[in-house]
Amino acid sequence: MKTLRIAMAQINSTVGDFAGNRDRIIDCIGRAKKAGADIVAFPELTVTGYPPEDLLLKPQFVKDNLRTLREILTATGGITAVVGFVDKDDVLYNAAAVLHNGRHIATYHKILLPNYGVFDEYRYFRPGRRYPLLTLRGVKIGVNICEDIWFSEGPTRSQALAGAEVIINLNASPYHKGKGRERLTMLSERAKQNNVIISYTNAVGGQDELVFDGQSMVIDGKGKLIASGNRFEEDLLIADIKVPDRKPVVHKAADQHFEAIDQVVISAKAGPKKKPLPARKAVMALPLCEEVYRALVLGTRDYMQKNGFRTAVIGLSGGIDSSLVAAVAVAALGKENVVGVFMPSQYSSNESRDDACELARNAGITVLEIPIVQTFDAYLNTLRCEFSRTRQDVTEENLQARIRGNLLMALSNKFGWLVLTTGNKSEMSVGYATLYGDMAGGFAVIKDVPKTLVYDVCRCINKLAGKAIIPKRVMTKAPTAELRPNQKDSDSLPVYSVLDPILKAYVEDNKEFREILKMGFDRNTVKRVIHLVDTSEYKRRQAPPGVKITPRGLGKDRRFPITNRYKSY
Amino acid sequence: MKTLRIAMAQINSTVGDFAGNRDRIIDCIGRAKKAGADIVAFPELTVTGYPPEDLLLKPQFVKDNLRTLREILTATGGITAVVGFVDKDDVLYNAAAVLHNGRHIATYHKILLPNYGVFDEYRYFRPGRRYPLLTLRGVKIGVNICEDIWFSEGPTRSQALAGAEVIINLNASPYHKGKGRERLTMLSERAKQNNVIISYTNAVGGQDELVFDGQSMVIDGKGKLIASGNRFEEDLLIADIKVPDRKPVVHKAADQHFEAIDQVVISAKAGPKKKPLPARKAVMALPLCEEVYRALVLGTRDYMQKNGFRTAVIGLSGGIDSSLVAAVAVAALGKENVVGVFMPSQYSSNESRDDACELARNAGITVLEIPIVQTFDAYLNTLRCEFSRTRQDVTEENLQARIRGNLLMALSNKFGWLVLTTGNKSEMSVGYATLYGDMAGGFAVIKDVPKTLVYDVCRCINKLAGKAIIPKRVMTKAPTAELRPNQKDSDSLPVYSVLDPILKAYVEDNKEFREILKMGFDRNTVKRVIHLVDTSEYKRRQAPPGVKITPRGLGKDRRFPITNRYKSY
Repeated sequence: MKTLRIAMAQINSTVGDFAGNRDRIIDCIGRAKKAGADIVAFPELTVTGYPPEDLLLKPQFVKDNLRTLREILTATGGITAVVGFVDKDDVLYNAAAVLHNGRHIATYHKILLPNYGVFDEYRYFRPGRRYPLLTLRGVKIGVNICEDIWFSEGPTRSQALAGAEVIINLNASPYHKGKGRERLTMLSERAKQNNVIISYTNAVGGQDELVFDGQSMVIDGKGKLIASGNRFEEDLLIADIKVPDRKPVVHKAADQHFEAIDQVVISAKAGPKKKPLPARKAVMALPLCEEVYRALVLGTRDYMQKNGFRTAVIGLSGGIDSSLVAAVAVAALGKENVVGVFMPSQYSSNESRDDACELARNAGITVLEIPIVQTFDAYLNTLRCEFSRTRQDVTEENLQARIRGNLLMALSNKFGWLVLTTGNKSEMSVGYATLYGDMAGGFAVIKDVPKTLVYDVCRCINKLAGKAIIPKRVMTKAPTAELRPNQKDSDSLPVYSVLDPILKAYVEDNKEFREILKMGFDRNTVKRVIHLVDTSEYKRRQAPPGVKITPRGLGKDRRFPITNRYKSY
Repeated sequence: MKTLRIAMAQINSTVGDFAGNRDRIIDCIGRAKKAGADIVAFPELTVTGYPPEDLLLKPQFVKDNLRTLREILTATGGITAVVGFVDKDDVLYNAAAVLHNGRHIATYHKILLPNYGVFDEYRYFRPGRRYPLLTLRGVKIGVNICEDIWFSEGPTRSQALAGAEVIINLNASPYHKGKGRERLTMLSERAKQNNVIISYTNAVGGQDELVFDGQSMVIDGKGKLIASGNRFEEDLLIADIKVPDRKPVVHKAADQHFEAIDQVVISAKAGPKKKPLPARKAVMALPLCEEVYRALVLGTRDYMQKNGFRTAVIGLSGGIDSSLVAAVAVAALGKENVVGVFMPSQYSSNESRDDACELARNAGITVLEIPIVQTFDAYLNTLRCEFSRTRQDVTEENLQARIRGNLLMALSNKFGWLVLTTGNKSEMSVGYATLYGDMAGGFAVIKDVPKTLVYDVCRCINKLAGKAIIPKRVMTKAPTAELRPNQKDSDSLPVYSVLDPILKAYVEDNKEFREILKMGFDRNTVKRVIHLVDTSEYKRRQAPPGVKITPRGLGKDRRFPITNRYKSY
């Protein structure tokens, strides 16, 4: 029986912040050393932050990343560190550097490059062709990166066949609802298949639309979870692993994935025993709605902070969407950094004002009241000639939404606040939103949260708080945009309990028209929903980014042409 | 000496319009037959339109494309047609079908899949591994697709080694300024290297940000251009090619690109002589500024028409950008379908009004005057409390721009007009534009045209018209946004003759800071420009699409994170 103490440094890198990322890495190396770790692993592309996108096309960016890696080297006296960075020869590689005692002793290049969903890795990288097999305290270790571990015939298998007893896998695995379970199932299977121990280090933090949720893990050779890191926050997970003695494995010839194996021996003999680590509380699985809530909070906080904003401003309508966004903002930024604005028109009810104020009171935030009536009249008066002989229609509704958008942007410009928009995924999918109106802002917090899930998350927030943050009436009254008298969402759209499953089938699952009909929905309803989704792409293209929550969000993982005559019904 | 009559059907497909695309294809097959062509070639992915993007992830879309291909089959009696479509087994291929006499006799799968710039082909397709070698009237023909011909060690070489005398290459090659010359140079080299005749069929038309510029070509085995199709419009180019007799080539074993060669013999013997084709005027190369102008016109016309819009509305400021956009719109849509709107504030000069009106008169379009003063006052009055104790700043400037944006959008909503925005590439690069203000609209015609090129194109328009369409004074006065008294662009930005080359170096060429300094620019100016570009990504993300004109536009070919702390200076 050999032993190894592995540290998994689940850090929150910022894209392009080489100095900041370096300092975080060096700090964790120091803490891992102090805790007696033999090896410390970092997330994928920790040095640059993930994903750096087209910054990778700047030669200077890649050089600065290499310089940063050299600066980190100096901190690796007496420990081995595995650090994600961008390697370069004629082309670029998504790489892991093995640093030991001030020397860069080995490099692994990611072999399986994802180029689907939100990923564009073939745009930047070429796949690796060789890999190091480390020996540390007599334990054989294979290093690989993210996608490499998701396939049973992938690099993990090859490395196990070559003798690896432990796999150190570096990740920047974006969150979507339920992904934690998918990862655990996959890792457990991979460990069992190959009889290897897996150390899985994930990034944490928000980067534009993506949230990385941490929850680094160690899985033993039988597929059992033996340690896991915190979710949605930085952590340094340290675990002692016991590596059973096995018959030495004869190295197989290079297989489909690898052209060569580089043997790198750090220490061939099992090391002396260490004092056991202090016990650490096990991380409980979160209910889905709480998981979503925490992803929204982290995504919003990091978008604000990493872009240099302290205060958020939100248009409060008294409805559930803006209430949820305000609650998320308070959790992300603190109540003193959130400003609500109620902007009544002649169509706003007193009920709405009361609900907006109650929400503000419950959440502890300031609320301003800025009426739009005078400005609305000025627009109508200005357009009197052009609009003579026309009837009132959606134009006047959009004007109201756009005045509100302008008022929020004016506050943003004047005071340096970031406008958070409040549209949910159901609305954004069917285009039930006004461009430059309620869509105007810097970050669209819940743009990937379907309306039915909005309700779940609100209930969860109230439950966690042990009191009503989101007012009771907000959760029970019929949704309305209040842009004309007695308007209800259900005048224009199917009820959300029907709309949301159709949208999931069409937008997320790419189901065919006939398949959706077979789910039991009305033919005309399905046609109408598909038509609305297809024809509102131009609006989504101009929407601000927001947190990816579902397996297929409305951002980089759904790339539709605007000009599109395809009709599937 | 063998002969072959090849038709190149340079058609304007619309993405997803299977019925429309099918009808165009069948029509061209008929015309090619009538002209006595032996074979007719279509652009890449003609059946679906290019690029279909994530429509390809819908199984139903791929099936509908296969059904459409079967419908086309029936039209191929007595001729051979090579048609771009999506093929499918377990995965998808960017494919060319060889159809003959009502039978689908062979299929080629694109081997080199571009995944850079605007291209994402690895997201959808897998590379091909085998290819057909056709024999038609005794001539050996290799088929390949777009990227396949750009590399000297690519499929063209392999096919030539296997005996191909003619290469039929299908393309959807997006336009950028000067690309016609690049293509001709490359094709000429490829033909000479391999001693093959190349028939190059390109798509034509606009699709969101892309314009395909046609100019299909035939190059002889010595690299000489022997025929070319029209630029920026549909065409059926028909050419008689003479294939010199050669010693038969022994087929080489499968090389790096191919696993197998399929011999497909349509007719083994040279056919009888045909009556020569009527002479066709040679296409002259266009001056660069005219080329850009025609790309803008085609891109704008197709975006409007393919999305079902007839009339465009444009905010006219009396400046050069809006004047150019109006001139382009008139050329694209007809003067009766273009409406100009002059929206004066207290800061607007009489000169601006005169210039806007003169432009409208010259271009023959209606102009509305809708002042913004009353609405501006209403906003300021509404925000009086919140803005007390603050000073006038960019907030008030943005408000004016946003009122104008709202007025245009109100006209758009009321009358079904599409708003064309007027920002140029220089402004969009440094963020000298107001989100939801002058950036509000459906199509950003000149968003990839640097300001200095705006002037060139305007001069070109006046020259082509033989009179001033763009008023003289508009071309000579200092650019201003007129959002405060006596404002000039040069108060906030370096002069455009300095700004544009810095932007080209930084944005298009990804040059390092030091390299840009070496070009002779002032250190602080370069720093400031880089800072402005880096920090305005959030604006560009919410901008409407516009015609790609340069090798690296601001749309899908430049993918930067918004959250980005990288500083290269």
